[in-house]
Amino acid sequence: MTATARLHGIFTPNIVPLDDRGQINESELRRYTSWLIERGVHGLYPNGSTGEFTRFSVEERRRIIEIMVDETRGRVPILAGAAEANVAETIDACEHYHRLGVRAVAIVSPFYYKLSPESVYAYFKTIGDNSPVDVTLYNIPMFASPIDVPTMTRLALECPRIAAIKDSSGDIPHMMRMIAAVRPHRPDFAFLTGWDAAVMPMLLIGCDGGTNATSGIVPELTRRLYDLTVGGRLDEARELQYKILRLFDAALYSADFPEGFRAALGLRGFRVGAGRQPMSDKQQVEIGTLRDTLACLLAEEGFADEPVGGCPADAAAKRPQDQIQSSTGGNVDSIVQGVIAELKRRGIA
Amino acid sequence: MTATARLHGIFTPNIVPLDDRGQINESELRRYTSWLIERGVHGLYPNGSTGEFTRFSVEERRRIIEIMVDETRGRVPILAGAAEANVAETIDACEHYHRLGVRAVAIVSPFYYKLSPESVYAYFKTIGDNSPVDVTLYNIPMFASPIDVPTMTRLALECPRIAAIKDSSGDIPHMMRMIAAVRPHRPDFAFLTGWDAAVMPMLLIGCDGGTNATSGIVPELTRRLYDLTVGGRLDEARELQYKILRLFDAALYSADFPEGFRAALGLRGFRVGAGRQPMSDKQQVEIGTLRDTLACLLAEEGFADEPVGGCPADAAAKRPQDQIQSSTGGNVDSIVQGVIAELKRRGIA
Amino acid sequence: MTATARLHGIFTPNIVPLDDRGQINESELRRYTSWLIERGVHGLYPNGSTGEFTRFSVEERRRIIEIMVDETRGRVPILAGAAEANVAETIDACEHYHRLGVRAVAIVSPFYYKLSPESVYAYFKTIGDNSPVDVTLYNIPMFASPIDVPTMTRLALECPRIAAIKDSSGDIPHMMRMIAAVRPHRPDFAFLTGWDAAVMPMLLIGCDGGTNATSGIVPELTRRLYDLTVGGRLDEARELQYKILRLFDAALYSADFPEGFRAALGLRGFRVGAGRQPMSDKQQVEIGTLRDTLACLLAEEGFADEPVGGCPADAAAKRPQDQIQSSTGGNVDSIVQGVIAELKRRGIA
Amino acid sequence: MTATARLHGIFTPNIVPLDDRGQINESELRRYTSWLIERGVHGLYPNGSTGEFTRFSVEERRRIIEIMVDETRGRVPILAGAAEANVAETIDACEHYHRLGVRAVAIVSPFYYKLSPESVYAYFKTIGDNSPVDVTLYNIPMFASPIDVPTMTRLALECPRIAAIKDSSGDIPHMMRMIAAVRPHRPDFAFLTGWDAAVMPMLLIGCDGGTNATSGIVPELTRRLYDLTVGGRLDEARELQYKILRLFDAALYSADFPEGFRAALGLRGFRVGAGRQPMSDKQQVEIGTLRDTLACLLAEEGFADEPVGGCPADAAAKRPQDQIQSSTGGNVDSIVQGVIAELKRRGIA
Repeated sequence: MTATARLHGIFTPNIVPLDDRGQINESELRRYTSWLIERGVHGLYPNGSTGEFTRFSVEERRRIIEIMVDETRGRVPILAGAAEANVAETIDACEHYHRLGVRAVAIVSPFYYKLSPESVYAYFKTIGDNSPVDVTLYNIPMFASPIDVPTMTRLALECPRIAAIKDSSGDIPHMMRMIAAVRPHRPDFAFLTGWDAAVMPMLLIGCDGGTNATSGIVPELTRRLYDLTVGGRLDEARELQYKILRLFDAALYSADFPEGFRAALGLRGFRVGAGRQPMSDKQQVEIGTLRDTLACLLAEEGFADEPVGGCPADAAAKRPQDQIQSSTGGNVDSIVQGVIAELKRRGIA
Repeated sequence: MTATARLHGIFTPNIVPLDDRGQINESELRRYTSWLIERGVHGLYPNGSTGEFTRFSVEERRRIIEIMVDETRGRVPILAGAAEANVAETIDACEHYHRLGVRAVAIVSPFYYKLSPESVYAYFKTIGDNSPVDVTLYNIPMFASPIDVPTMTRLALECPRIAAIKDSSGDIPHMMRMIAAVRPHRPDFAFLTGWDAAVMPMLLIGCDGGTNATSGIVPELTRRLYDLTVGGRLDEARELQYKILRLFDAALYSADFPEGFRAALGLRGFRVGAGRQPMSDKQQVEIGTLRDTLACLLAEEGFADEPVGGCPADAAAKRPQDQIQSSTGGNVDSIVQGVIAELKRRGIA
Repeated sequence: MTATARLHGIFTPNIVPLDDRGQINESELRRYTSWLIERGVHGLYPNGSTGEFTRFSVEERRRIIEIMVDETRGRVPILAGAAEANVAETIDACEHYHRLGVRAVAIVSPFYYKLSPESVYAYFKTIGDNSPVDVTLYNIPMFASPIDVPTMTRLALECPRIAAIKDSSGDIPHMMRMIAAVRPHRPDFAFLTGWDAAVMPMLLIGCDGGTNATSGIVPELTRRLYDLTVGGRLDEARELQYKILRLFDAALYSADFPEGFRAALGLRGFRVGAGRQPMSDKQQVEIGTLRDTLACLLAEEGFADEPVGGCPADAAAKRPQDQIQSSTGGNVDSIVQGVIAELKRRGIA
Repeated sequence: MTATARLHGIFTPNIVPLDDRGQINESELRRYTSWLIERGVHGLYPNGSTGEFTRFSVEERRRIIEIMVDETRGRVPILAGAAEANVAETIDACEHYHRLGVRAVAIVSPFYYKLSPESVYAYFKTIGDNSPVDVTLYNIPMFASPIDVPTMTRLALECPRIAAIKDSSGDIPHMMRMIAAVRPHRPDFAFLTGWDAAVMPMLLIGCDGGTNATSGIVPELTRRLYDLTVGGRLDEARELQYKILRLFDAALYSADFPEGFRAALGLRGFRVGAGRQPMSDKQQVEIGTLRDTLACLLAEEGFADEPVGGCPADAAAKRPQDQIQSSTGGNVDSIVQGVIAELKRRGIA
């Protein structure tokens, strides 16, 4: 691999549409795959966290890749999520996806157990030494054992097959430390950010691209954000980054991930089906409210109709502070305030 | 189920011995199962965290239960870990294990994604409403989405099939809050602690028993700790609890879980094989050092031979402060000090 | 100091009553001091976290000790909080309180900056080597730099003047590790728990006593809990520990610490005044609700009148699960549910 | 205040030089003040975290401001840290500093106790309504109660006197959320970042400036970073940001804050004296090693001589991955590796 060939651009970690029986909806997954490609994403990233890889069986994970490889027909590179129960099965998956022709695999750090850096190293070293296809490390410390800078540096320097890292920490100095440590020695090594809220600044400090859930909802905007930023049109890029932040925050913090993104994709015309993680009655109500919020955000860009009840005139201005996560936990504060506001409106409180 | 029939005693979350090819070592697993029963554990808990359930395939998890049910032949109740990729598959596992005749299943809270209490509720509610066999909630907030007190209370009050909780937080007031909230309404509901370091005080404030990794290493001691505590012989119980704490800390904090327990079980005469999580060279060295420490601790009780190099005269007195986790991360401080001490001994530093 | 002389029993970390101008209410502080002594606490602990030491000036902290020493007239030992802006000023405070005749000082680990174990060691070593009066280490990791087991062990072994630790982590195995490491070498060293929710189990595993905020509200009960536990009357002790847990949880989790304790003390007949940390209108309403809850809990013991609106028949049974902290942050969930319940009651939601 | 007058640029949170007795070294503080101004910082920020405000007495904090106001003689604006033990004393400090002519005060969120957003609101609302001088909120969640976006938005909308926020979280999306929520309504409100590692990207997404500890060490570089970034010379700015990151990481993670910065300032020719937080022997050795590292970094820019032992040829390339914080706690891993490497060099390990 040459330096110029390193992974770059926006790779979409796609949701998997389900049918009424909770099974993979192949036709909708195919339609979605082509829709994304047509709207300009640089690549696809099935079996990521957005793709709920842990909620599918081994066989289903393979089938998702097979369907998407077939539908893509080489139009864009595929980064295939390949984490399985242990290194032997993960290497099997790498081999299988390599035969299918994916550009690279992406492997999340071991999860459930919180492993030490040394164990994280040993895990990826074994995989990196045995995979026939390029490996992308996937660091998502909120869900899995963290891949720290010394560990990823060791891996990058020792394993030529390990060729990229997707980092979803959202921590810019952390990304800079990785780039500073690895790029002088591995110009072919790619750095991708999984944190949609910071794509523009990440690109500006040296990242090569992103794997961003919002690109599965508004691929047009995410692609444009990438093009504007690398093209140096920073004022336009900044404005777009703020818009994407609003959508990202709404989808991320008002429902358990990735339900908000599933709801948003439904608004773009896909039959996504119910997720495999059950929802309580209360959550069903909340997701309905969130859907209206998302519809208003998408309607501003012409991507969806406004909800039946209409959108607030100042929706744009008001959204951010309402929906971000309070330091005391989730968006509960805004829920409390919403209920109290309702009480006041009815003349009670 | 009547109030007197609730789960109680020590349930061993057993390690799964592997052969040279990394596959389940059935004969050794059978020998281990009977060895545990003969040494007095009240029950068995396969496919727990100690059993590395996430590192086995669906088929392997089933086979582990099948082997152990067959070997146990009803001598003690089995609590079968039944968590699978999603609720549908988890309910399938419940049905299968029910047909095998297990006493109950144990299901860990959803992991990887960090779910809200409402999602945790919906998950277990769906399972509790559909399982043909008693369900034990498994709360281990260091690895999985926490099951908070309101959530476990809702589940206990709404789902008769949910009949116990195993809590590995080690937080005694948390356990008391759960007991205070549920016991008046569900006298049949059992509370088990997964935190070996606090079995005695947990029993004294109302717990019914424990699922403790050390019981897989020193079942004789764990059983005796239980008997002494419920028998009110507190001075003897306390002394034993301190001994178990030393062993627990050594096994838990000097290697990534559950490798320390695997090493200790090897010292008791079982061929446990290499774990499925690879180790680096550095870790191989460290596990050798830990093995000596564990050998000294087990030798004190006559459960193992002293290591070749012998044991320090004051091993017992010195262990605790050396091995516990420093607030700045793991036992690194003690490693640094060990290396420096070694330098000094050789007249260098 | 001999082994039998080590600190033991319940030391009350007292609130400081304020007058209408927000200044120390000396007469009320004197009345409160004697009231506590008469109700059986073994000692007093002014300028602790409950005493809001950080919200007073240097001069005020000294005056609080002077008033209480004078009022106590040697009836019980005083453990004087002596942490000041830096070691020089802290040592000055130690000298001053020593001249006043306090039994020991208590010094919290450095706060604001999060210091490494080595810095925590250096801080206490300097104080321990220079204080003329016994020093109690105060470990409260939720507020200050943690004092880990190796650090407290070093300090205990190197500084004879350091004679006790007050640990507010509430972690029983942590307490056991400290006892195991230090007691063989320092039989005079005392271990006190600052976590009211676990006094009984802490005493049963070897603690010498506690410094507990609830003892400032219900000194009769806390003293009785101590006596019952050390006297081996465990069934009665357990029942009392559950009662204290309910009060502790209500006071701790429904308002920012220590406002709930201030409200509770008001119900026992003391004019505590408004705290120095301002409250919002919303908080004023919430503290009123909390006051009613606390009044019901205290009324059960005959310590306060029921609130005007009466108490729910099943208050006791229902409190715990309502008031404990949800994993998604504080008691917001119960607030939301409270508001929704109110809406339903009025036929709106 | 008009929109164009909002605070902007680099404000230096200065260290306070101490003399041999540990007292404020006035002449050195004056020399340092003028040195900073001459090297281009836009303003000064005494009594910040870098300035160790908590380790000085009330009187000393006032004297620091008085000295620096006098020395500055209006050449640059001063942002005076004004947090005291409670709101009354904090407002007194605001009044005093207003009389001295400071541009604004900066007030850290309440610390020690971890307060809820509602309490943080009430605290700043009281101050904002009573201060005669502009108030900068200071959010540093690693040390003090967090100021979340809804809370800072409420304060910005309700209190005209609150005119800026200094945010040291280093979280770019968090900064964007605050800007999105407040700027449309308060164009005069300034956003400053306290996270030196991300000044360039923070400025590019809309920040007005920074209060950065490295600007106290290399004011020439920090000023140039600001000028290059706002001037759109991004390639040069990026290169400089990476340099500052190396210096920041070295100074921040190899010693307890702010000792690394104190050591670095010594290398620039100031007699900073020993800090008020004592150091152990081990720390004295470590700070010597760190001093050499910092000397090499500063020597690259011509700001200091190389240490006696010289600098490694590839110092620049190697530093980052060595010194950053391991996920398992501090830089202990690198220390261990250093000791082991030393052992190997001497033919022992």
